[in-house]
Amino acid sequence: MSQRVSDEGVRKKMEEIRSGHGDTFSHFHKVESPPKQTLLQEIKHSVVETFFPDKPLNKFKNQTGFRVFVLALQSFFPIFEWGRDYNLKNFRGDFISGLTIASLCIPQDIAYAKLANLDPQYALYTSFVTPLVYAFMGSSRDIAIGPVSVVSLLLGTTLSDEISDIKSHEYLRLAFTATFFAGVTQMALGVLRLGFLIDFLSHAAVVGFMTGSAITIALQQLKGLLGIKNFTKKTDIVSVMRSVFSSAHHGWNWETIVIGLAFLVFLLVAKYIGKKNKKLFWVAAISPMISVIVSTFCVYITRADKKGVAILKHVKKGVNSSSAGEIFFSGKYLGPGIRVGVIAGMVALTEAVAIGRTFAAMKDYPLDGNQEMMAIGAMNIIGSLTSCYVSTGGFSRTAVNNMAGCKTAVSNIVMSMVVLLTLLLITPLFKYTPNAVLASIIIAAVLGLVNIEAIILLWKIDKFDFVACMGALFGVVFINVEIGLLIAVAISFSKILLQVTRPRTAILGKLPGTTVYRNVWQYPKAIQIDGMLIVRVDSAIYFSNSNYIKDRILRWLTDEETQRITSGLSRIEYLTVEMSPVTDIDTSGIHACEELYKSLQKRRVQLILANPGPIVIQKLRASKLTDVIGENNIFPTVADVVSTFGSNGEELL
Amino acid sequence: MSQRVSDEGVRKKMEEIRSGHGDTFSHFHKVESPPKQTLLQEIKHSVVETFFPDKPLNKFKNQTGFRVFVLALQSFFPIFEWGRDYNLKNFRGDFISGLTIASLCIPQDIAYAKLANLDPQYALYTSFVTPLVYAFMGSSRDIAIGPVSVVSLLLGTTLSDEISDIKSHEYLRLAFTATFFAGVTQMALGVLRLGFLIDFLSHAAVVGFMTGSAITIALQQLKGLLGIKNFTKKTDIVSVMRSVFSSAHHGWNWETIVIGLAFLVFLLVAKYIGKKNKKLFWVAAISPMISVIVSTFCVYITRADKKGVAILKHVKKGVNSSSAGEIFFSGKYLGPGIRVGVIAGMVALTEAVAIGRTFAAMKDYPLDGNQEMMAIGAMNIIGSLTSCYVSTGGFSRTAVNNMAGCKTAVSNIVMSMVVLLTLLLITPLFKYTPNAVLASIIIAAVLGLVNIEAIILLWKIDKFDFVACMGALFGVVFINVEIGLLIAVAISFSKILLQVTRPRTAILGKLPGTTVYRNVWQYPKAIQIDGMLIVRVDSAIYFSNSNYIKDRILRWLTDEETQRITSGLSRIEYLTVEMSPVTDIDTSGIHACEELYKSLQKRRVQLILANPGPIVIQKLRASKLTDVIGENNIFPTVADVVSTFGSNGEELL
Repeated sequence: MSQRVSDEGVRKKMEEIRSGHGDTFSHFHKVESPPKQTLLQEIKHSVVETFFPDKPLNKFKNQTGFRVFVLALQSFFPIFEWGRDYNLKNFRGDFISGLTIASLCIPQDIAYAKLANLDPQYALYTSFVTPLVYAFMGSSRDIAIGPVSVVSLLLGTTLSDEISDIKSHEYLRLAFTATFFAGVTQMALGVLRLGFLIDFLSHAAVVGFMTGSAITIALQQLKGLLGIKNFTKKTDIVSVMRSVFSSAHHGWNWETIVIGLAFLVFLLVAKYIGKKNKKLFWVAAISPMISVIVSTFCVYITRADKKGVAILKHVKKGVNSSSAGEIFFSGKYLGPGIRVGVIAGMVALTEAVAIGRTFAAMKDYPLDGNQEMMAIGAMNIIGSLTSCYVSTGGFSRTAVNNMAGCKTAVSNIVMSMVVLLTLLLITPLFKYTPNAVLASIIIAAVLGLVNIEAIILLWKIDKFDFVACMGALFGVVFINVEIGLLIAVAISFSKILLQVTRPRTAILGKLPGTTVYRNVWQYPKAIQIDGMLIVRVDSAIYFSNSNYIKDRILRWLTDEETQRITSGLSRIEYLTVEMSPVTDIDTSGIHACEELYKSLQKRRVQLILANPGPIVIQKLRASKLTDVIGENNIFPTVADVVSTFGSNGEELL
Repeated sequence: MSQRVSDEGVRKKMEEIRSGHGDTFSHFHKVESPPKQTLLQEIKHSVVETFFPDKPLNKFKNQTGFRVFVLALQSFFPIFEWGRDYNLKNFRGDFISGLTIASLCIPQDIAYAKLANLDPQYALYTSFVTPLVYAFMGSSRDIAIGPVSVVSLLLGTTLSDEISDIKSHEYLRLAFTATFFAGVTQMALGVLRLGFLIDFLSHAAVVGFMTGSAITIALQQLKGLLGIKNFTKKTDIVSVMRSVFSSAHHGWNWETIVIGLAFLVFLLVAKYIGKKNKKLFWVAAISPMISVIVSTFCVYITRADKKGVAILKHVKKGVNSSSAGEIFFSGKYLGPGIRVGVIAGMVALTEAVAIGRTFAAMKDYPLDGNQEMMAIGAMNIIGSLTSCYVSTGGFSRTAVNNMAGCKTAVSNIVMSMVVLLTLLLITPLFKYTPNAVLASIIIAAVLGLVNIEAIILLWKIDKFDFVACMGALFGVVFINVEIGLLIAVAISFSKILLQVTRPRTAILGKLPGTTVYRNVWQYPKAIQIDGMLIVRVDSAIYFSNSNYIKDRILRWLTDEETQRITSGLSRIEYLTVEMSPVTDIDTSGIHACEELYKSLQKRRVQLILANPGPIVIQKLRASKLTDVIGENNIFPTVADVVSTFGSNGEELL
């Protein structure tokens, strides 16, 4: 059929087919519009899918009075739900895992407090209060709560940019302020059901950011490990390495180095053992505590602190005091407090949600993202009022918690109690703990954040993701944590922008011996139809891409036409746009379609639409564009188009 | 087949089918990976599609030396291309249309200058210089260049926010500065091939912004039309109406009102005639000029200016002087100049590109968006150095240009020459032109920007677009032009965000009597398969939506399972994900797929993928996820899945 079929001819053929004289394919199905929805239904549907995709209100249906109250209480405090089935067997698991993570978290906390430029007791306060709050409100069964290295570093660097005197009372107050606003940010995201916003930090960006932070944190520990006194306040690798080498001659303390390296080796060996034999995970878990005890004892006996080994000196005994009056609600530090709080809150949330999701998927229980945010937000708000700083679910301690056999959030309560006892009884004993051991503990801990395999996988799967990852990594390592984060977000966003601005299109051909049409690039065997070009548009058509799509289709047509005419084939008379993937179209898209139709008319090419979706066909009909193109030229499948307009069998090549 | 098929059984059945014992469908086609591309090819392809979708360098291929120079010259100065075929017949059309738009533009320019708080001659300077530059560099054949109402208003309000003394020399210098940076912005977008950024201002937002601006501009004219002396400087409707009513008793000048209303009626009637009878379009086109001449003469004769009728007073005679030294390149006004320039430049560009595209589509000639931006940028940069302010392609004069039969950009040159003669000879004659007539001219002109039909169409087609449009409109009318613009951009962006965060999914069923699977919501006749759920994902799977998609699929499964079990049907054993619309997947998406697979395994449901696209299958294979899911469970079509795992014929209901 290389001759142009007249409209009359087409209509006749169509009628023939519809009355049953055609072949047995889907001709008797017309493209249908879905049942019409009212405006209110449409809006409701859209709001529900955006903010309530998990249908949280479903369970309240057909319930009344007291029952609704109980259900609401249970959804805000999940402990009232799972607590009813709690039994001794669960408690045994939780008790052991609680003790294990306590022995891990106490030395880690003391070390992390240094990253945030805070006194050690504040991290212990944090590990006492926030896990208690989380146990009541959290929906994860595995997350172990406490200060984490990345957020501690982020706080330490951003807060000291604002107040350089890290020993001042203002610095501490600013830390509480940031913690308060971190909590408010997290809670707000949960309450407003905007939790999906943290999905905008892509997996690749998080991997890069975490790895970069781990490297930066490890480099920072050279100060404690080498016993350097005059260390740079900057965190970028260039400044740090310059600091290290410039102090090589007289700034390093050899006793410190011996202690630090000895325990670092011990910790890494313990870690390796725990990794090799999963049953011995507790070796790795308690190794930091053992290091602290042994090293403290050694220093006390040998009085190595007199020989220049830096020690922790003073850890305040006793339980948290209130810090409600310390938060800046006005004045010049309110602004910086909010800014740092929002950033730290988002980063903390990203880590907690990522780790929570991983373990929820592993054990296959539902994790309510918005509830998690409310729980973490609440615990940070309460924390900021009780001398704690930003706390979240940490990677390493959560993994240990899980391996130690935790069953519920009760393990967090156990850990919290152990920390309380520590605060009340034994903090003075940490006086002689050498800083070098704390540096070793941090280095051993953050090595777990460096995920080389994940980076290699990124390279293999998606080069763009790899670039985003590296951008974040180098940003953190060479500039600072904030810039790294900014780069990660910017690259993620530019990817989204690219996706919505330059969607893909494909030329379709028929798989030999079938009525299936597939991308000719993917299936080189697929055969194009004589006199017809079939283009599939692989995206919703919106204002951001409508002009591109129109131009791209016309370019396909021009390219293909030139090629066919050079090959001596007949000219293209029909352009079929396969619209299956086009889920939506807006007014800009409708205009682009109309312009495409007009341009094709000028070129004497007939526009045909195949399988417009429910929303699209509704809008095409509402805009009367179907009348312009002709309902006759809209088909439910490409196969129908070809059997109507194409010459059955007369395929290209 | 309500019994779970063992892996062994499936494999056997697959082999049977592949060896030809199955039915005659596409089983013998496997899902293919496209030819592997090197990293460099991938990057090149991606860059080309993003920045050079129009392949501007194609024509330079296989050309050498002088020819490349000529082609480059032609692509930067299209006049050297179309100029070669220029003939007398073209010139006749261009001459008449040039005269027509000149007679329209001179009175309009004088009026628009008032909106920008500038003396009238600056608008005339603009209409002399910038059309000349455009004629050499522009690729549109219809656009008529000059100051436009919306940009004039935008400049007037934003600049007077910075410098409230609009009569000061600083104000004028700031206007030139903004014009310079508007030009730089436009040129940069063109040179960097970032023209697609203006697509982010959706059609709906532009309609709303334009309509709102038209209303605001019309309201501003009440000052001139009613002869009010103390008028608010704000542009929001509340302030303006308060100003009008508070001056009702003694602030209105009745002579002014009579003149203003009389000519407004005349202009509107002329406009109506031009609209009713397309051949009489010139009546509308020259009516402003007639109004100016007649009213000026009347005022001069009756000396109505002595009775309180405000007149133009002084229009400077002579041609533009250089303003190169006037631009702020440093100091406190540099920042505001850049800010206003960037905004005005983007708005001006949006108007020019929208109008250019409309007429290019109407006459079916190619319009190079990036070249247009460079042309408009260049003309504004040159303009800023020669006492002009921001200029662009205007809606009304372009329409008149087209109707008057323009053939090429030569009509702009003709107009420019007429304006030059006006500047040299007759500007002093405008002295007695009453401001009221200028107000009438503006009102009559901006009414054309109010497009009620377009707004109704938005409502009909897409409610979200309608909201964006109304947001922009009310923002402009009730607050100010900048806020309106901000609302328009924000709503447009939130739509994109929504699209990439909450893509659609659909349940598929078989159209009776075919092997075609379609959305059961759109085609209620479509029949679901016993023991199987088929879900189509309608978007690329990226970090921004991967979790949502995974959860949504699981929710479909839960909902459907409950429903089927209540109806006494067998449980769902197979979940087929139809991936035709999934054009891409990133590492987050791969993780989500893996988690989906694991969750389904826990529920004893087999995951099956149908028709993964070229990119997707490559990445699935690279990540070894195909090995986890099993290559046996990946099919080229849904029909293949059903004929392998479904019980042929045993359909639901």
